[in-house]
Amino acid sequence: MRHVVILAGGSGTRLWPASRRCRPKQFLPLGKRTDESLIAATARRVAGNSVWVVTAANQAPLVRAALPALAPEAIVAEPAARNTAAALGLAAVHLVHRDPDAIMGALPADQHVADEDGFARVAAEAFDLAECEDVIVTVGIVPTHPETGFGYLQVGAPLEGNARHVARFVEKPDRATAEQYLASGDYLWNGGMFFVRARRLLDDIARLMPDTAEVLDAIARALERSPEEAERVTAERYPGLPKVSIDYGVMEKTTGVVTIPGDFGWSDVGSWTALADYRPADAAGNVVQGNAVLCDAAGNVVVSDPDRAVALVGVHDLVVVQSGDAVLVVPRDRAQDVRDAVAALDAAGLERFR
Amino acid sequence: MRHVVILAGGSGTRLWPASRRCRPKQFLPLGKRTDESLIAATARRVAGNSVWVVTAANQAPLVRAALPALAPEAIVAEPAARNTAAALGLAAVHLVHRDPDAIMGALPADQHVADEDGFARVAAEAFDLAECEDVIVTVGIVPTHPETGFGYLQVGAPLEGNARHVARFVEKPDRATAEQYLASGDYLWNGGMFFVRARRLLDDIARLMPDTAEVLDAIARALERSPEEAERVTAERYPGLPKVSIDYGVMEKTTGVVTIPGDFGWSDVGSWTALADYRPADAAGNVVQGNAVLCDAAGNVVVSDPDRAVALVGVHDLVVVQSGDAVLVVPRDRAQDVRDAVAALDAAGLERFR
Repeated sequence: MRHVVILAGGSGTRLWPASRRCRPKQFLPLGKRTDESLIAATARRVAGNSVWVVTAANQAPLVRAALPALAPEAIVAEPAARNTAAALGLAAVHLVHRDPDAIMGALPADQHVADEDGFARVAAEAFDLAECEDVIVTVGIVPTHPETGFGYLQVGAPLEGNARHVARFVEKPDRATAEQYLASGDYLWNGGMFFVRARRLLDDIARLMPDTAEVLDAIARALERSPEEAERVTAERYPGLPKVSIDYGVMEKTTGVVTIPGDFGWSDVGSWTALADYRPADAAGNVVQGNAVLCDAAGNVVVSDPDRAVALVGVHDLVVVQSGDAVLVVPRDRAQDVRDAVAALDAAGLERFR
Repeated sequence: MRHVVILAGGSGTRLWPASRRCRPKQFLPLGKRTDESLIAATARRVAGNSVWVVTAANQAPLVRAALPALAPEAIVAEPAARNTAAALGLAAVHLVHRDPDAIMGALPADQHVADEDGFARVAAEAFDLAECEDVIVTVGIVPTHPETGFGYLQVGAPLEGNARHVARFVEKPDRATAEQYLASGDYLWNGGMFFVRARRLLDDIARLMPDTAEVLDAIARALERSPEEAERVTAERYPGLPKVSIDYGVMEKTTGVVTIPGDFGWSDVGSWTALADYRPADAAGNVVQGNAVLCDAAGNVVVSDPDRAVALVGVHDLVVVQSGDAVLVVPRDRAQDVRDAVAALDAAGLERFR
């Protein structure tokens, strides 16, 4: 049976001040629709499948609030964040316990998709392939610009349908390399979405990450005894796992990794400027969420709470965000540097605004 | 006897969003000290004198809160704003009723003075002169730059002490004219402060503004009967007075106007950039009130409420103000244009943020 595992572990510092330590990015309405959180949109796009969520234990209440239809046992809580290899391994243990033949589609909770039908077609083909072949199917995003913030996949020989073999995974490139990748047409962005039989993922982890596999096995054995026992063993042993990404721990080292190219208006919502990619702009290129007055102002991204207002006069190409008790002002082309401001809050004795 | 009349009638649109329709500029801590409103600082600078306040009736509670030591009968409430000739005429009527020989020093509530001893010396000399001679003494501010936002006084022959005759009043000049004025050394800014025997001011109004004088006389006669009667006549007739400034109605047309030059770090707190003139800046030229983190940011004026925070990354020479439920972002050199934003709030259906 097919199961979607939504990974809701991110913190989203670059989306401060909307994203906070206690209310990360995936729980915010940062997609095209301003009335739906990113995680709710992710779940809606795969509605009809069995849906699971792996999240930090302290975020479980936020997940329940965001996804009220989710069964309580479909939330797999991590007692501590140990990166994606551990998180997906833990999810796979729970899936296999419930359904030994589980096919697992892993999706980050905090992405935006503009063309939802296009996404659904790719996901269906990826599920089909993962069910019928002994492969891990990644979705490779067709690049739209020479992005230096993502890892890439180099595609190899065609398989069946739209699928291609993956020749290799490559790290975030510099600008010149990214431009070569884009021009070659042989590279896709690694969007962090993949589809695999859960049992096969656990086998790969056993082979490539034996320390992690030992802990996962212990949790699996505890799960045979009782959910409470599994929870106890997870609390005891999971926090000691190494922090390794699924890309580094498994994908780059295993065999039989294939990709289906996806061209469905994907965004990782990596900074405030992402909103300008899929939200409508006014005649002067301003993208506004909330209440704003703009006088002689162009190309700005402006966000306010519904009961607040922001006024911009004579400024251009800024990001201005009011959220709760904090305000951010940064040029659009430096939106990535919001991390610096969040780090600076601590040094300024203003940790309470993180 | 000497009386100070503080004129608290302004609205201060350019200091939005701190200044609001219901909480104008003079009630905000916009001077050097962040714990004292402008009106409280104005009253403190003349402590020891008899102090009166002319204000809009609906601002009387704000005045009482800002100046708790003020006697209730020292608040002269205008039922409607009719500009400074009417307001000062009304104050003069009340002063003369209490003290027929009243010498009146009129001071706007919403100005900042850096050198308070220097101000006190000028005020004392102005009071002396108004008491001993049949003149109106204006304080002329020694200009520090070719300001186009103020009216000017052209000084004439010396009188006694530091006083000079005023040759003429001139309207706000254009930039080239303002530069000539500055270079000539013969012009002072009209700071709106003047000192005069109250009876003489009423005589001037009677001669130059007979319609206004008729209403003021009616109020004076009612005051002889009872305070309640005066209040009734004021409510009935004051709102019908023409809106005329004291400069246009009296000062420019009467004789015997003299000036004492004042060079005491005066500011009309005319926009947010004024704060940078008298508040300390950090090494990068940022002036901050409240909580702010500044990453690679220079020359900004940043204001937040005590329980909020503002983060600036990679921006320079901006004014960023968070106050209550609103946020303003404007370049320092366009701080005057905040009026446009306030006007735009209405058009955008956001009047509630004015």
